[in-house]
Amino acid sequence: MRCRISYGGAVTTNPAAPRPALSPVDYGVGARFTLSVYDSDYVRIILDALAGANRDGLTIETSDISTFVGGTEARVLEFLREVIAAAAASGAHLSAAALLSRGCPGELACALPDGVAALGAEPVALAPTGVRARAHWSLYPLLDGGANGDHMSPIYAAIEDAKSAGVYAGSDHFATRLDGDLAEVLATAANGWIGVGGVVQHVTTHLTVSINSPSPIAE
Amino acid sequence: MRCRISYGGAVTTNPAAPRPALSPVDYGVGARFTLSVYDSDYVRIILDALAGANRDGLTIETSDISTFVGGTEARVLEFLREVIAAAAASGAHLSAAALLSRGCPGELACALPDGVAALGAEPVALAPTGVRARAHWSLYPLLDGGANGDHMSPIYAAIEDAKSAGVYAGSDHFATRLDGDLAEVLATAANGWIGVGGVVQHVTTHLTVSINSPSPIAE
Repeated sequence: MRCRISYGGAVTTNPAAPRPALSPVDYGVGARFTLSVYDSDYVRIILDALAGANRDGLTIETSDISTFVGGTEARVLEFLREVIAAAAASGAHLSAAALLSRGCPGELACALPDGVAALGAEPVALAPTGVRARAHWSLYPLLDGGANGDHMSPIYAAIEDAKSAGVYAGSDHFATRLDGDLAEVLATAANGWIGVGGVVQHVTTHLTVSINSPSPIAE
Repeated sequence: MRCRISYGGAVTTNPAAPRPALSPVDYGVGARFTLSVYDSDYVRIILDALAGANRDGLTIETSDISTFVGGTEARVLEFLREVIAAAAASGAHLSAAALLSRGCPGELACALPDGVAALGAEPVALAPTGVRARAHWSLYPLLDGGANGDHMSPIYAAIEDAKSAGVYAGSDHFATRLDGDLAEVLATAANGWIGVGGVVQHVTTHLTVSINSPSPIAE
């Protein structure tokens, strides 16, 4: 019941081994997020944003703490983009704390069958929203001892990709600052996570997005 | 400039090696958190909560996205407890998304000198607040390949500790649910993080705390 890290592609130790066919649900692809609206009318704003979003192909469970969204990487990110953009259209200041995870189905216990390699996925592309978002973003390749590589190299590579995407806005303690259209911010974090997921089985990423803040922007 | 994982205590490969004296700042101990108040009077509530908290021994930097707090584990957690409890006393619904990190100073680059072992710290104990908090909590031991052990075992051990502390409320996708006095919830997450930090150098933990929610509680 523990996570096993293995590698796909050129760095796999056994490239000829057959890989089981796994759905995104089997592979534990999904998000958990908390949408916080700094407005006394928050119930209406949040419920309207959730109700208006396309749920096709997704498993969605909302609790008093956060909302779980399971499905393909593309559908999960499209849903996050749609919900957050809809809430932002209210004009209220809001933050969204989102966790993306892949490679460990269920919750903490990892029940993937033995021999499952890191399972790649296509990068996501999200339609622009016209909403400016700023975010703190952290990426966690969860290696086991005995695997190849170190955990920081994939992080540095993802940051370089964020710079190429034009949404990198600086490095702070424990997090990278992103700034751009909400769609670009979400896609950059997601594509860092998906990219590492091609070589590390269990990968999570966290980002806290801030929109419509009245605070001065620290550059 | 990459993080090197090494082990202290019985599992170190070189227990006799001298360890450099490192301050919490050298070792990158700190938090980054976003306090979200679901109320149109949020500016006053947040600024009052931040202004009233004891900052002794802490480095605090607030931006438009989140607030960084650097210092010893005990002081960082006391500060979080004090700020969140003060905001909760307003009666407003709020959430706090907090990231705790240790073992990588600076931001993403890890500049610890070679030979630094995992540096233990005493568990924190926080005074009760009288504020009920519910949280989703995730713990990330960031091993490098070539280290000993796997990344899930320390997570399972921390969850068992949460059960012993009486604040474990269930396991959801990607996160453990905690429920109890805000002080107990924060201390449980922090002590899981500190505990893993005794054997793994770079460890982060994330928790999203919800207080005064009008939503029905899903058990």
